[in-house]
Amino acid sequence: MDFTIITKLLAEKDYYGIKKILSTSQVADIAEFLNMQDASTALLVFRLLPKDMAADVFAHLSPTRQSELSVLVNEKELLQIIEDLYFDDKIDFLEEVPAYVVKKILQNSSETERKLINQFLNYPEDSAGSIMTIEFVDLKKEMLVREALAKIRETAPNKETIYTCYVTDANRVLEGILSLRDLVIAEPEQKIGDIMRTEIIYANTHDDKEEIAELVKKYDLLALPITDNEKRLVGIVTVDDILDVIEDENTEDFHKMAALEPTDIEYLESGVLAMARNRIVWLLILMLSATFTGYIIRHFQSTLEKVVALTVFIPMLMDTGGNAGSQSSTLIIRSLALNEVSFSNIAQVIWKEFRISLVVGITLASVNFLRILVIEKYPPTIAGIVSLTLILTVITAKLVGSCFPILAKQLKIDPAIMAAPLITTIVDTISLIIYFSLASRILPIV
Amino acid sequence: MDFTIITKLLAEKDYYGIKKILSTSQVADIAEFLNMQDASTALLVFRLLPKDMAADVFAHLSPTRQSELSVLVNEKELLQIIEDLYFDDKIDFLEEVPAYVVKKILQNSSETERKLINQFLNYPEDSAGSIMTIEFVDLKKEMLVREALAKIRETAPNKETIYTCYVTDANRVLEGILSLRDLVIAEPEQKIGDIMRTEIIYANTHDDKEEIAELVKKYDLLALPITDNEKRLVGIVTVDDILDVIEDENTEDFHKMAALEPTDIEYLESGVLAMARNRIVWLLILMLSATFTGYIIRHFQSTLEKVVALTVFIPMLMDTGGNAGSQSSTLIIRSLALNEVSFSNIAQVIWKEFRISLVVGITLASVNFLRILVIEKYPPTIAGIVSLTLILTVITAKLVGSCFPILAKQLKIDPAIMAAPLITTIVDTISLIIYFSLASRILPIV
Repeated sequence: MDFTIITKLLAEKDYYGIKKILSTSQVADIAEFLNMQDASTALLVFRLLPKDMAADVFAHLSPTRQSELSVLVNEKELLQIIEDLYFDDKIDFLEEVPAYVVKKILQNSSETERKLINQFLNYPEDSAGSIMTIEFVDLKKEMLVREALAKIRETAPNKETIYTCYVTDANRVLEGILSLRDLVIAEPEQKIGDIMRTEIIYANTHDDKEEIAELVKKYDLLALPITDNEKRLVGIVTVDDILDVIEDENTEDFHKMAALEPTDIEYLESGVLAMARNRIVWLLILMLSATFTGYIIRHFQSTLEKVVALTVFIPMLMDTGGNAGSQSSTLIIRSLALNEVSFSNIAQVIWKEFRISLVVGITLASVNFLRILVIEKYPPTIAGIVSLTLILTVITAKLVGSCFPILAKQLKIDPAIMAAPLITTIVDTISLIIYFSLASRILPIV
Repeated sequence: MDFTIITKLLAEKDYYGIKKILSTSQVADIAEFLNMQDASTALLVFRLLPKDMAADVFAHLSPTRQSELSVLVNEKELLQIIEDLYFDDKIDFLEEVPAYVVKKILQNSSETERKLINQFLNYPEDSAGSIMTIEFVDLKKEMLVREALAKIRETAPNKETIYTCYVTDANRVLEGILSLRDLVIAEPEQKIGDIMRTEIIYANTHDDKEEIAELVKKYDLLALPITDNEKRLVGIVTVDDILDVIEDENTEDFHKMAALEPTDIEYLESGVLAMARNRIVWLLILMLSATFTGYIIRHFQSTLEKVVALTVFIPMLMDTGGNAGSQSSTLIIRSLALNEVSFSNIAQVIWKEFRISLVVGITLASVNFLRILVIEKYPPTIAGIVSLTLILTVITAKLVGSCFPILAKQLKIDPAIMAAPLITTIVDTISLIIYFSLASRILPIV
């Protein structure tokens, strides 16, 4: 879809031309275009959409744009869109719009629907329940393959996916699953109960959506059935929603690892004060923790007063320690997130990081020793103290950086907290202690 | 699948019992179990697998375990497994195993297959071609729906997905797509050419796999057709492989942002020297860059000698500047990766970060001013210099942290490079200059 052509046609008020292009465009592209316009243009173009695309395009709009449009369209239009939305998109929408819009929509729903909406709105924020949808194909064990195919054919347009079908008993308890592939290959007169699979991967409505994503990824699923505590099938989560979950979880980790309170609002859409608040908390905690480094320096002030040259290397030692620690903590946090490393591997990790830090530390220290001696022309004692500190700092940094995330996870704390910012503060403190202890011991003459 | 039961049955040599459990287990679980055993136990259990599961389980094994097993099994077994693998899994396997295994397999392939394997092995590492597979359903425009369904029924067991079918002409040029959903809903006597969709989302074999993932995510696809430069259909990429691409790309970003050379080998499987090498390069670059901070301190050594107390606050200023800069750079790098921010937004970003940094900087500086004055009992001039430096450092950090990734992307450099480690080094240098300039101006009496 060529955005410039639509813009041109808009300027020419050639609405018939726009209509024609829209009807053969991808809903994701149309939504992208609508997100970029001002609200009234967006409404104009939205109204030119074919009836059967409107809800689908609406579901792809940004939350802000959805809210704006829901206020601009008339009540009849709004109710029509809402009715045509898949249930998970409907819930996402209701979570974002002003309360009076929600009220209007609930008033126009049947009692069953209203109950269901309230139930879904109450699922915990990051739970499977909050991202599942109810439009799945529901079969019975007694059905024949050809009856099942007839049912699918009839209801397909209203189902989010028809590629995995679910077999339930009279109490809606999940008994088996069947892919459309199985159905297409089977003989028309076979019984569903005879060909369904009973080893089912499923999850509970209250399971964390991150675990749901893990299951879908591990078992290469197109959809995952979600059951309540009585194993009754209440919804499914489809793989396209899992892609969003994975991106969200990764974004959350990136943010946490940079000492940011995670938020799911896009950068350009968030307010200055909200963003400042998301950043201040951790900066304050880390700033106050960093005052320890100040106490250490005050403690060794007499050493420093005699050899001011020692100050010259503080930033380099701190930066290198911080970087060495961040490398290890990032590697381990990511490996923990991908379940490649667990608490049982801690000894293995320590031994590995120790050997790596020896190689890295000695290499860096050698380069540094020569540089300080030859280029900066400091005496060998100073070069020696700095280089020895460097080795010990790298070793400390790598051990702290690798162990703390594993220990955090074991203590049920999010390992992503143990990333660069906190590790740097801890390592800085330790490396300054090492530096000044070495200096005051090796330079007793001053 | 209960791993402890299998382990128990192994000890009891109850191979019949193991066989029974395996036949109703998920291939991903069996692979996980095999990855955890020693090679000979893994081989033993692998040989107990039903014939039709062996290749699928093999495809799910870790590369190391695949290599080991390929050496342990006899030639006949190996060739059977390889023959049963989907083409993309076959290529992944051939990329990992010893050369003589590759040679043995190529010798036993037909000439067409050998050519195809060589073509696929030659696609650039991160290209669409390197992750696509060739097992897709290929239909013709002239076919009737019932003929298409009959063809699908017949070939389904050998296709990676049957849920999206591709319509090609005599020269294999992609003309249309059709979902199995469309086929199931259509009338048996309709022509494929009449119901296929011609607005196709597709990609080229040489496109980057990250772009492929973007397309699949944006358009909610289950599979994406990949064409050559003549628009001939050569393969498809399925959504389950896209999940892996997304995880890999995120891991790569995490690593780059922590100054690590990215690697796709799991933590516990990589060697000490290889890991040390992946870390040393950036640490060296950053360590040598940090020597600038040393020059700045030397330059202001006379100021420092007179007021050694100034040293006390260097670590805190550096840490806070680094953290403030990392927050902004992480937010922007992530927003760039998700296409939420682009170069056209740079003015908006600068203005937003400037306002945020004022709020954050003034808050931090106030807390800090009081702390230095009241708790640490330094004179107001020192508290003032430190606090003013803090405000200016936070502003600088946030502007550098947010602009550099955007500028990098504009210059076709990976924005992930402009993350915490590099930003910290840059911000440290600037903040030290600010600190000492302010100090030597405001404290002229010393």
